Amino acid sequence: MRIRELTPADWPQVWPIVRDIVRAGETFAYDPVMTEQQAHDMWVLRPPAITVVAVTDDRVTGTANAYANRPGPGAHVSTASFMVSAAERGKGVGTALCRFVMEWAKEHDFVGMQFNAVAESNHRAVDLYMRLGFEIIGTVPGAFHHSTLGRVGLHVMYCEF
Amino acid sequence: MRIRELTPADWPQVWPIVRDIVRAGETFAYDPVMTEQQAHDMWVLRPPAITVVAVTDDRVTGTANAYANRPGPGAHVSTASFMVSAAERGKGVGTALCRFVMEWAKEHDFVGMQFNAVAESNHRAVDLYMRLGFEIIGTVPGAFHHSTLGRVGLHVMYCEF
Repeated sequence: MRIRELTPADWPQVWPIVRDIVRAGETFAYDPVMTEQQAHDMWVLRPPAITVVAVTDDRVTGTANAYANRPGPGAHVSTASFMVSAAERGKGVGTALCRFVMEWAKEHDFVGMQFNAVAESNHRAVDLYMRLGFEIIGTVPGAFHHSTLGRVGLHVMYCEF
Repeated sequence: MRIRELTPADWPQVWPIVRDIVRAGETFAYDPVMTEQQAHDMWVLRPPAITVVAVTDDRVTGTANAYANRPGPGAHVSTASFMVSAAERGKGVGTALCRFVMEWAKEHDFVGMQFNAVAESNHRAVDLYMRLGFEIIGTVPGAFHHSTLGRVGLHVMYCEF
């Protein structure tokens, strides 16, 4: 598996990953009916932000982006998002993506990384983040309407570098 | 004091309030060098969001906006922001604005209101929110670079309706 910056040629393989995850409504508080163009503009970011892909045997198996969590007085803290193809989960793609963007953020002088809205039902993601040094700052009760579980909490998570 | 929806004629009085607060760098994680047009587009929102002003003796003394905190599965939780003219602080303008948008959010079927980034050094705001029923969900350490105090924490606050 290799992680590298996304190029325009990757999008046809990235879009189905984003589409299926957003439509499932289990993990991301994104508009579930967003169009392909909206998804592209939301996910594929320009510098100083970064969008990357995980590639296994020439197939895109996951993607991530990272950027300053807030402008101005909040711009020293980064944030990031991760999506892994359903067929590739449990194989370390998410871990590799998270490690990659954490290194990117450290190299770009961010002092930490914050996740603003991690569905507490997304145990795979929560466990992964905890393993990589994140802590749960707090949980907003019922703030995420999971498509099958109903309302679950949204964790704010943070890792100081 | 009266609170009502912002109209285009209010902007010349709203802009100095926004400008001075953003440039001070003490409370909002906004770009401190934003232009007037950027500030307008960021602050003055279209339905289903709302932007209001507090008016005392025909003068705009404060302003607030409110909207869904996240799209899709997060759209049942509202958020809001408040700015009060420096000369008018301590006179109940912020409290009246907060009460107004909380009522607006309840009427629009939001289940609660979340503040994503309240500088912990902004005691006036934190105390006001607590009085109106908000709790501190957690604090991201050092996430706000205060212009004179250095790095202070950012509270995530929430009030369930």
